[in-house]
Amino acid sequence: MTLPGQLNPTPRILLGPGPSNAHPRVIRAMATPLIGHLDPEFIGIMEDVKSMLQQVFRTKNALTFPVSATGSAGMEAILTNLLEPGDEALICVNGVFGNRMADIVERLGAKLHRVDAPWGKWIEPEQVKEALGKCKPKAVAIVHAETSTGVLQPLEEIGKLAHDAGALFLVDTVTSLGGTDVRVDDWGIDAVYSGTQKCLSAPPGLAPVSFSDRAVEAIRARKTKVQSWYLDTTMLINYWSGEKRAYHHTAPISSIYSLYEALRIVLEEGLESRFERHQKNHELLKAGLEDLGFEFLVPEGYRLPMLNAVKLPQGFDDAGMRKTLLDRYNIEVGAGLGEFAGKVWRIGLMGYGSNENHVNALISALRQVL
Amino acid sequence: MTLPGQLNPTPRILLGPGPSNAHPRVIRAMATPLIGHLDPEFIGIMEDVKSMLQQVFRTKNALTFPVSATGSAGMEAILTNLLEPGDEALICVNGVFGNRMADIVERLGAKLHRVDAPWGKWIEPEQVKEALGKCKPKAVAIVHAETSTGVLQPLEEIGKLAHDAGALFLVDTVTSLGGTDVRVDDWGIDAVYSGTQKCLSAPPGLAPVSFSDRAVEAIRARKTKVQSWYLDTTMLINYWSGEKRAYHHTAPISSIYSLYEALRIVLEEGLESRFERHQKNHELLKAGLEDLGFEFLVPEGYRLPMLNAVKLPQGFDDAGMRKTLLDRYNIEVGAGLGEFAGKVWRIGLMGYGSNENHVNALISALRQVL
Repeated sequence: MTLPGQLNPTPRILLGPGPSNAHPRVIRAMATPLIGHLDPEFIGIMEDVKSMLQQVFRTKNALTFPVSATGSAGMEAILTNLLEPGDEALICVNGVFGNRMADIVERLGAKLHRVDAPWGKWIEPEQVKEALGKCKPKAVAIVHAETSTGVLQPLEEIGKLAHDAGALFLVDTVTSLGGTDVRVDDWGIDAVYSGTQKCLSAPPGLAPVSFSDRAVEAIRARKTKVQSWYLDTTMLINYWSGEKRAYHHTAPISSIYSLYEALRIVLEEGLESRFERHQKNHELLKAGLEDLGFEFLVPEGYRLPMLNAVKLPQGFDDAGMRKTLLDRYNIEVGAGLGEFAGKVWRIGLMGYGSNENHVNALISALRQVL
Repeated sequence: MTLPGQLNPTPRILLGPGPSNAHPRVIRAMATPLIGHLDPEFIGIMEDVKSMLQQVFRTKNALTFPVSATGSAGMEAILTNLLEPGDEALICVNGVFGNRMADIVERLGAKLHRVDAPWGKWIEPEQVKEALGKCKPKAVAIVHAETSTGVLQPLEEIGKLAHDAGALFLVDTVTSLGGTDVRVDDWGIDAVYSGTQKCLSAPPGLAPVSFSDRAVEAIRARKTKVQSWYLDTTMLINYWSGEKRAYHHTAPISSIYSLYEALRIVLEEGLESRFERHQKNHELLKAGLEDLGFEFLVPEGYRLPMLNAVKLPQGFDDAGMRKTLLDRYNIEVGAGLGEFAGKVWRIGLMGYGSNENHVNALISALRQVL
């Protein structure tokens, strides 16, 4: 028998693409003793989580709850509930996460149509309009905050185009929720998913989702069962709402505690103040990085405030520099993903982690080692 | 804006079908500050978790890791990785969880064959043998510890029959792992899943799984992609092993911390001592319950030590009594599920929760209120 030693990871400043540092109150909440997943007190906590999620998503959608798995399972939940084999879907792809949606659509046996933009660019409404002239999809899906590139995608016009074409409008807000404005109802979003480990400052483990009434109707009109039992909202709804809560799977109690506290902190600060804080610290970081000679990948106006993608100068020792930051300063920054590997850094300032001290620590460390 | 108050659930003694009370050291471990999911220190923690899981599953299987979702997602992970549309599967059903497997098999587009036993009974090898004479399944699946009925299912003979028929042998050990013997290699189990919130005494949120080399070959030989992107082991393996860890999804860091500490505690106690403790406390509970006039549902020899299903006497106020236990004593016991609703209680003594004080608290409370 081999028995590893006590858990003792080095405390880090997490300035990568997520997880970000969880808020200390969230960490404490997670250590609350467990109660049962059908305990009346737990049902009360679930109700509060739903209501707070509605406020953060800015929606009245009744079907709003956290999926019991990480953000990518939220993506799968939205797509597997809304698409049946043979359905058509139009997926907008300008980075890793658009590609992931396209992959899932094909696994579901649905017919995939794509609109592509180069990595680091956004999708133009004109592209979606053109594509919608050539197919009749049940859903149009897009990423609001492309974590692989740092692009903030404008949504309203594309949402209108989707609706005009009779399609549902599905949006990935994993990195944006709680850090920049997400208006589910105003923007006509029919299904949305997010994650807890970015701007909500809770540990990874849950994927908040919300479905509009139109989306719920589409699920009700399915001819086949949802392919995933675990993610099937037609059953989950009986646990997350109604008089008599029916057991589906055992809810991840501690993760829901953590989300409860994380959402309280978001609402205490206020959404607008929180977005301003993210923007202000993004600008502080930008000034520091540009001063050091780094260039932003994404043009102004389309940059995410919580995920800063900068180009690495010619000959820059990507892995070595990240290792130095981690080993000497305990600062984690994110490497480039996919076609940006070795070419880009992704620097996150998310939720609780978006603060001046983090910016100063990183800029000072970079100044010392460059 | 409505803002719920501070999280403050009443501490409970959890004697239901799970979650059980997490060990205080596990709760503390979960509050460890987050590090990144690709941090070299986290990779070290993952390696230790894998190695401890191998010891607890009693297996040498290289593909052994926790799925990033609760136990039922482990069930879905095993089935979705091993079955393709058109494949045949023989599912043994004697309770809720066998039924759930059958449901998932159909959602995957595989052909379902069933062997049924009445709830509260086990599956006889003879039944499996007969069924295997009439079909040629790719997999035979069965539940080791049926949480809905309290039945402990003998596995070895059925495993041999499955192998003789050229089928993979898949087993649900959600409730048994860490509380009674599970011998993955000795019993020829090709794929197994469990949960963290039962006898491992961690919060719900992860599903430990293990695949034999034969199972891995079967996955490699697939003609189609695994239907679930999130649960696709052909990609997960690149995150959980190998030199260069490839990002798949963001691992639930805190949950993995909790599993790390939970597994350490299991191995410190030693598997055999742990199983003896579960058996001893089961016998103590049994004596107390029989003294109060309760009858066990399952005949001796097939009873789970960690999940005690007892029949409710005629006219017994099921819901009222459970409410009294919860409100007055903060003790949770489990209601009957499915066809046992209103007829059975399920009393869990799992992991850390399997101790004399819990037994005494419950028996004394029952004595007072009956």
